[in-house]
Amino acid sequence: MAEEKLPTRAENFAEWYNQLVLKAELADYAPVRGCMVVRPYGWALWENITAALDKRFKETGHMNAAFPTLIPMSFFEKEKEHVEGFAPELAVVTHGGGEKLEEPLAVRPTSETIIGYMYSKWIKSWRDLPVLINVWGSVLRWELRTKLFLRTAEFYWQEGHTAHATKEEALEEMYRILDLYADFAVNEAAVPVIKGRKSETERFAGAQITTSIEGMMQDKRALQSATSHYFGQNFAKAFEIQYLDKNNSLQFCETTSWGLSTRMIGAIIMVHGDDQGLILPPRLAPIQAIIVPIFKNDAEKSKVMEVADKVFAELKTAGIRVKLDDRDNVSSGFKFNDWEMRGVPLRVEIGPRDVEKGSVALARRDVPGRDGKSFVSQTGLASTVSGLLTEIQDALLKRATAFRDANIHEPKSYDELKKIVEDGWAFAWWCGSAECEAKVKEETKATTRNIPFDQPKSEGKCVVCGNKATQKVYFAKAY
Amino acid sequence: MAEEKLPTRAENFAEWYNQLVLKAELADYAPVRGCMVVRPYGWALWENITAALDKRFKETGHMNAAFPTLIPMSFFEKEKEHVEGFAPELAVVTHGGGEKLEEPLAVRPTSETIIGYMYSKWIKSWRDLPVLINVWGSVLRWELRTKLFLRTAEFYWQEGHTAHATKEEALEEMYRILDLYADFAVNEAAVPVIKGRKSETERFAGAQITTSIEGMMQDKRALQSATSHYFGQNFAKAFEIQYLDKNNSLQFCETTSWGLSTRMIGAIIMVHGDDQGLILPPRLAPIQAIIVPIFKNDAEKSKVMEVADKVFAELKTAGIRVKLDDRDNVSSGFKFNDWEMRGVPLRVEIGPRDVEKGSVALARRDVPGRDGKSFVSQTGLASTVSGLLTEIQDALLKRATAFRDANIHEPKSYDELKKIVEDGWAFAWWCGSAECEAKVKEETKATTRNIPFDQPKSEGKCVVCGNKATQKVYFAKAY
Repeated sequence: MAEEKLPTRAENFAEWYNQLVLKAELADYAPVRGCMVVRPYGWALWENITAALDKRFKETGHMNAAFPTLIPMSFFEKEKEHVEGFAPELAVVTHGGGEKLEEPLAVRPTSETIIGYMYSKWIKSWRDLPVLINVWGSVLRWELRTKLFLRTAEFYWQEGHTAHATKEEALEEMYRILDLYADFAVNEAAVPVIKGRKSETERFAGAQITTSIEGMMQDKRALQSATSHYFGQNFAKAFEIQYLDKNNSLQFCETTSWGLSTRMIGAIIMVHGDDQGLILPPRLAPIQAIIVPIFKNDAEKSKVMEVADKVFAELKTAGIRVKLDDRDNVSSGFKFNDWEMRGVPLRVEIGPRDVEKGSVALARRDVPGRDGKSFVSQTGLASTVSGLLTEIQDALLKRATAFRDANIHEPKSYDELKKIVEDGWAFAWWCGSAECEAKVKEETKATTRNIPFDQPKSEGKCVVCGNKATQKVYFAKAY
Repeated sequence: MAEEKLPTRAENFAEWYNQLVLKAELADYAPVRGCMVVRPYGWALWENITAALDKRFKETGHMNAAFPTLIPMSFFEKEKEHVEGFAPELAVVTHGGGEKLEEPLAVRPTSETIIGYMYSKWIKSWRDLPVLINVWGSVLRWELRTKLFLRTAEFYWQEGHTAHATKEEALEEMYRILDLYADFAVNEAAVPVIKGRKSETERFAGAQITTSIEGMMQDKRALQSATSHYFGQNFAKAFEIQYLDKNNSLQFCETTSWGLSTRMIGAIIMVHGDDQGLILPPRLAPIQAIIVPIFKNDAEKSKVMEVADKVFAELKTAGIRVKLDDRDNVSSGFKFNDWEMRGVPLRVEIGPRDVEKGSVALARRDVPGRDGKSFVSQTGLASTVSGLLTEIQDALLKRATAFRDANIHEPKSYDELKKIVEDGWAFAWWCGSAECEAKVKEETKATTRNIPFDQPKSEGKCVVCGNKATQKVYFAKAY
């Protein structure tokens, strides 16, 4: 797969992305329109993402569970905004076991309704609260214009659903999870993100507050990377999720939901990748170090492989995710390109001279060419490699943060905003009206991304209508 | 939930099972007929099962991936036996995004077809083989008579799908995985199983060979706990999974598939549970040790809780899955019953006298009453507890194996067989004919479970027809 070159990002960013996903064997198109297959290398990356998140969910008291894929259609009718948002996107099962069903069933597009129904059965008293459940799975939303990882009919994600006694606790949960997502994005994926509240227009169907983390891709478009919602009592009322409080009086619960999906893989690709292929952050990379033995004849081979096997064993024992590429039907140059395409953070080259000198050559994926190369001793290699992986992780975050910050501008006028969002993000005063938001969207295709929690102390004038504005918002074109 | 007693196993085994699953909060009925919700406690058990299996799959070179939930209906037509087996059980999506689909889609009942389709795209050369992929997910087979974990329309499982260059390699894979399943069942779930080949009648739809592991429940019925199939070139021909061999000639692959599902949870319940509730094998138990502090007043409470907190921290640090039950709105007796119902292998009781004496009381779940109780020092408690958990794990396997062996009998006549299968398994000579198999099923409801690999060297006479028989088979009533 790696023989043909990618188009460069500058030439055609969209094509660079599409081809990279296929060539790096992260995913493929499924025979069902709009669906994707996540291939082993892509799934290994997703497994590392899920492990890092799952650990954080469990540390904050959440447990996983599983709810059915199929949901009675009537469930969607119970929450007005929810059904308006999701009804047009449903895939509907009308037949089962050879017979027409009395009530059609939807393949879940999200599980608030069925989980709400179960919570109403399970929750009786304040003693049962909070209920903190997460689900790992897939959901389906009918999509015709698809792009692997970013927009597919079926996608993989986690969806958390919690029920609380009070508004305060539910809000606390929503923010706790948003912080958790940001911590994951920054410290595991090396993707800097901005935390904030979505506008009413951009809110999840049925939510009272939607918060998000937003990242900037290398084409300067925004990617909403995860969301955390507060529902108030909307779903509790729709599904009668009630509890007896300490005074024995019946109350509605306050609920939240929150999700992060395989879109995050899209973010990792588009934030870090270069014209040679993927660059994966070491903390999530399925393979952190690839060993490539270099030799010209059998005599060299046997010497080199002996050292390569030893190095492999040492790195593996040290807990590094390492692979030894011992294929003998392809050249070293082919291997270099192949693993560069797949974004392995560090390459360990071992040739006959290294065997003699007791050294290896290390090549950083994030710094191509000579600058990224170092020649180090085989002694203490595991700790050298670990240190370098940490350095690469930090460098990726630093580079992505600098890139993002350099491409956010504060427009003083509407004309300036229009210019900025053509090739960057605008951080602008906004009066909060849906009209101004719609105008920007119509005239520039940029949408409000989020209203960050970090706000200036002062007030300003809406960049669109000039009226008083008490908040600044990010406008950007988005995936 | 734990206030009401279970029916005893002797009274009504089926009701004992149904109520136990609900009371222990392992699972619940979903609003969609035939579907189940796996609750957090049940899912935590499943997560431990998946971790133990996943480790084994990866150690043997497999990688995970994800394939779509929806499969074009036409795919099923491509393998004749497969479509006959699965067509009657399909749930069918006919509408998507508000419109009728050109081709209806099935919610996957198993993924041989769609994976076969993808393999035909991916596999080109002998260099691409073997392909060793596993999927964790759920599948759906329309079922009306359901029983939580044992038979539900949607269930959770893993399905492995592999493609090989030769028949030998494919058969080796099928047996390797069957051994892996047996190793898991015996050493993690403490469920003794018999490995063998299914009869042609009981084979998976489309397989040339189906092998299984079979366990005996406490009602002496058999439970097929996992299967591993060899397809020969059936699916390779149906989906054109071909490769160029070393001589550049085009060959069909040989494929296998294999699966273990949430049925295994049913096996664990029915093999180990008693009239007080679940008994979970320590290696899979979500909570291995439950600490119950015992006190009568606040002065006692503060002393006891100090020790309980210390013990909790020590056990946790030692890697034991431990929980401290510090609820103060229920009695100690309630807590004892509650955790017995949930099958926690070991209870650690700490009262005021234990605080004084530097001791704790340990109560084994598998040995009720005084016999299972010991009073040990707080010093070195983590290692005492670890040792005891290993002992419990071993004892459960030993007990289940003895029970099974005591309930397998070798009939000398057909009349004897009929008597045996009313309350046990018959290990009998069988001529191999579908007629004899059908006769037994019709007259006794017992089916052939499997033809074990361990066979006597001699020959015998079929227990049904009296003709020559070269193999012995297990007959039993099954779930």
